[in-house]
Amino acid sequence: MSSSFTTIALIGKHKNPEIAIPLLNLAEHLTKKNYKVLLDHLTASQVCSNQYPALSLEEIGEQADLAVVMGGDGTMLNIARMLVSYDVPLIGINQGRLGFLTDLSVDTMFETLDKMLAGQYTTERRMLLYAEVIRDDVSVFGSLAFNDVVLYRGMSSGMIEFEVRVNNEYVNTLRSDGLIVTTPTGSTAYALSSGGPILHPGLDLIALVPVCPHTLSNRPIVIGPDASVQIQMHSAANVRINCDSHSCFDLEQTDNIAVRRFPKTVRLLHSINHSYYRMLREKLGWSELP
Amino acid sequence: MSSSFTTIALIGKHKNPEIAIPLLNLAEHLTKKNYKVLLDHLTASQVCSNQYPALSLEEIGEQADLAVVMGGDGTMLNIARMLVSYDVPLIGINQGRLGFLTDLSVDTMFETLDKMLAGQYTTERRMLLYAEVIRDDVSVFGSLAFNDVVLYRGMSSGMIEFEVRVNNEYVNTLRSDGLIVTTPTGSTAYALSSGGPILHPGLDLIALVPVCPHTLSNRPIVIGPDASVQIQMHSAANVRINCDSHSCFDLEQTDNIAVRRFPKTVRLLHSINHSYYRMLREKLGWSELP
Amino acid sequence: MSSSFTTIALIGKHKNPEIAIPLLNLAEHLTKKNYKVLLDHLTASQVCSNQYPALSLEEIGEQADLAVVMGGDGTMLNIARMLVSYDVPLIGINQGRLGFLTDLSVDTMFETLDKMLAGQYTTERRMLLYAEVIRDDVSVFGSLAFNDVVLYRGMSSGMIEFEVRVNNEYVNTLRSDGLIVTTPTGSTAYALSSGGPILHPGLDLIALVPVCPHTLSNRPIVIGPDASVQIQMHSAANVRINCDSHSCFDLEQTDNIAVRRFPKTVRLLHSINHSYYRMLREKLGWSELP
Amino acid sequence: MSSSFTTIALIGKHKNPEIAIPLLNLAEHLTKKNYKVLLDHLTASQVCSNQYPALSLEEIGEQADLAVVMGGDGTMLNIARMLVSYDVPLIGINQGRLGFLTDLSVDTMFETLDKMLAGQYTTERRMLLYAEVIRDDVSVFGSLAFNDVVLYRGMSSGMIEFEVRVNNEYVNTLRSDGLIVTTPTGSTAYALSSGGPILHPGLDLIALVPVCPHTLSNRPIVIGPDASVQIQMHSAANVRINCDSHSCFDLEQTDNIAVRRFPKTVRLLHSINHSYYRMLREKLGWSELP
Repeated sequence: MSSSFTTIALIGKHKNPEIAIPLLNLAEHLTKKNYKVLLDHLTASQVCSNQYPALSLEEIGEQADLAVVMGGDGTMLNIARMLVSYDVPLIGINQGRLGFLTDLSVDTMFETLDKMLAGQYTTERRMLLYAEVIRDDVSVFGSLAFNDVVLYRGMSSGMIEFEVRVNNEYVNTLRSDGLIVTTPTGSTAYALSSGGPILHPGLDLIALVPVCPHTLSNRPIVIGPDASVQIQMHSAANVRINCDSHSCFDLEQTDNIAVRRFPKTVRLLHSINHSYYRMLREKLGWSELP
Repeated sequence: MSSSFTTIALIGKHKNPEIAIPLLNLAEHLTKKNYKVLLDHLTASQVCSNQYPALSLEEIGEQADLAVVMGGDGTMLNIARMLVSYDVPLIGINQGRLGFLTDLSVDTMFETLDKMLAGQYTTERRMLLYAEVIRDDVSVFGSLAFNDVVLYRGMSSGMIEFEVRVNNEYVNTLRSDGLIVTTPTGSTAYALSSGGPILHPGLDLIALVPVCPHTLSNRPIVIGPDASVQIQMHSAANVRINCDSHSCFDLEQTDNIAVRRFPKTVRLLHSINHSYYRMLREKLGWSELP
Repeated sequence: MSSSFTTIALIGKHKNPEIAIPLLNLAEHLTKKNYKVLLDHLTASQVCSNQYPALSLEEIGEQADLAVVMGGDGTMLNIARMLVSYDVPLIGINQGRLGFLTDLSVDTMFETLDKMLAGQYTTERRMLLYAEVIRDDVSVFGSLAFNDVVLYRGMSSGMIEFEVRVNNEYVNTLRSDGLIVTTPTGSTAYALSSGGPILHPGLDLIALVPVCPHTLSNRPIVIGPDASVQIQMHSAANVRINCDSHSCFDLEQTDNIAVRRFPKTVRLLHSINHSYYRMLREKLGWSELP
Repeated sequence: MSSSFTTIALIGKHKNPEIAIPLLNLAEHLTKKNYKVLLDHLTASQVCSNQYPALSLEEIGEQADLAVVMGGDGTMLNIARMLVSYDVPLIGINQGRLGFLTDLSVDTMFETLDKMLAGQYTTERRMLLYAEVIRDDVSVFGSLAFNDVVLYRGMSSGMIEFEVRVNNEYVNTLRSDGLIVTTPTGSTAYALSSGGPILHPGLDLIALVPVCPHTLSNRPIVIGPDASVQIQMHSAANVRINCDSHSCFDLEQTDNIAVRRFPKTVRLLHSINHSYYRMLREKLGWSELP
């Protein structure tokens, strides 16, 4: 073991019993190599093992040098948000089709992880957003977003209307299905389906991507990472906000939304063979070199 | 009076007291010219007049030679759906900015209507759609749509997935925010915001316009007016269907949706000075001839 | 031989020597089944055979009951335009990846053609366009288009500007890279890359698809098949028109362009197993039924 | 005069005689306030005045503390590129509709300029690109671009094909009408018509915007300002490159294109009342606050 990592947490996708075997294999593999392996409570109970210490995510954040997440991009989004304050580096392993965030294959994980633990990795820092809902000057909802903060019309049958400000400067009044405030990480998720640009994940940027705007010239706007975004609803019946398609909140009429950069970043480790553009080509069906 | 019209119904936008005066002025104008003027119950109660017979829309459908709708395009959509089976021709008058369907201005309505009643009009037939929700082989919801039938994700925080068939032939499996099945009339409404084409309203056509599809090559498809569209949900939690942003229905897991042309058409009368392309230029902010 | 076809022309892609063997194999196969096989001059010289009568395309148009085109969609576009006046039905065979118009694979052509010749086929009529350039009231260029008539900026470094009329009614003044006037057949070609809709090829329709318009609300417009399109250049330096990316013409300042439906149609024969939507799914990378 | 500026160059749009009077009025106004006024040779000859020293742009770059450009955005693009190496701050005055870069109106220029010269201005640094064409390892063309570097198909009737690399890493092989490499300044120009995002001009970024790509998932990509872009043609017949729709170059078969950030920036001065978002709303027809 010639690595700067000594304690490695393994975190599996919830309600996904088929990860039990590869996860336990990986735990055994790492243990043999003298790494200390930790599990989080949910994973431990899912894999039915008491061979490894089972900790809360907070404890993992404090004790682990590295967290290996086994699952899809959705699992990685969740774990990344929960561990962001601890600055634990993250590696993602995918059982199926590789994801943007889970870029190691379970089939080759021993070999790839061994190399990475030996120092053959690159580190990428990714920014997150923090969204708040302000009602009568009080924050009534707050959530981190690694991909995006999405304002959408929910059950209402027509468009919603709201004012957008950046750094308290009026930008426009949108009538649309919603608005996506996305990080570079989220730019290849929902924002891409709504006409947003691909933002290289190495950049710190925020994009404002309207969803089906009534005015066709309401194109996506890319702003700096330290800009703050304010959204003031004109009519909020049935309007909803969510972060990473995960935590939801139903708005009321006079609610304002504030989105700004979260001060800490997620640290992703990639194999030195990892290529973001190759990933884009595979995920988006781009043609290869002839 | 040298007109083929003798009995004219005046129908006003609901909950819109400011139409009372222009509507009563119009009623008086037409009465002086020896037309028989009818009101529908809601309009009569709104304008606080018992000078004119107040009838149900069904009775108007049976008795009127012409219905003049005062309001916006939303009002016209509603009245057109309700009167479509009676084949009463419709004229739309707008108090504010002209609409696609309400193309006479209240400011010039006497002059324009007089000319139209004297025969200076063109007739346009517009197709409608009929949408049904089938649950266990039983139709549990049915509604007319003049603009569009919209399937959308409602409160669900992620994309919805469903299979689309045309004339029972499999087209594709969409993962998206939803799907718009639109008439030419609806092609300049919500479908346009979702990337759909403008379909000339004189055509009988149906367009299938995906809303924010996950697969970027899922472009709008234009099919013939007599094609039937079948939509089979893969997962229908929180999914909703609406017709003309009006009648809504919440889907359940195994629901299928069927959309087909309604056998009757709406008959719109336009002033001979009406130009569809001028309307497009005004509504969409296209540049004029220099 | 229980077929309504007796004389079959085989036409191969030019400058494409690898079709010689499959084309001669097919000729032999058909001859054995007592069909009379014809070649066009170019194909005959390319396959170096004098076993079959070599005719001009005009003679083929007059004598053949069926023309089988071996090549890609580009070859089929060319042959279809050249034979359209003779109403000879067409079948397309592709050596590589199937095309929209060449939907038989060379690998299975014997079996599929035998069935089609025995009556197991469907017939599809496709419309064509005819474009003319009018200079000082004289037609200086005329060409058929099966896919599209494309007006584009050529070498000019900025946008071009022109007025569009439909049936002599002013539609708009476009500033753009160009304009595509497309048939349903061409709707999946260049027009699709420019944001146009997919038009089912069974329909008779024309779509006007602006290329990179300055005004973002200048969306594609679908009009009826009998509408005539007039384009009047504001400034035509370096502007060029082409039909099916094939016949080109350089415009001068005061040129007008007229596009209308060609009175005859192309008759395509498909195997009864052919599915347009399956073709769309394959060509556009749409997901299949799970 | 309580200003840090003492020598002010006035530069007018070429071949635009109507700027003579306002430009001379401005020169007189500034002279009265004890600023030293310079003209460039072309402007001096156009306004037919020998009252002010007439210099080359190089001399202006060396001697002026400020250059005031009177014309449209095209004039400002040209002057900015030519003066960028001298770091002279620029102010743009527009006679007609305000531009993105020429944001002072000629009607209010005395008042606005007086305030700006008194210190009431903001400074904005804008990045430029430098494009080179490499043929057999030799640079055969080089040009600055303030807006964009555009590769396009020129007279060729079909799509062009080329490989894109960023920092020598393969990104994709594009088949398209072309590719726009844009600065934030150029993001509201041609790139916007091609589906690119709006990049706030205060950011240093590069966007790669494909023009009508064959593969619909070839979406715009935003990369960092220090990334270098390499484009390798597959077939370059008739392909052309231009910078700011200005300097053009015809490519040959084996040419490569390299685009990178220019090391110096343009310094634009704005009135303190200037708002980028207000400009966007006006130029793009966005709705205002109700």
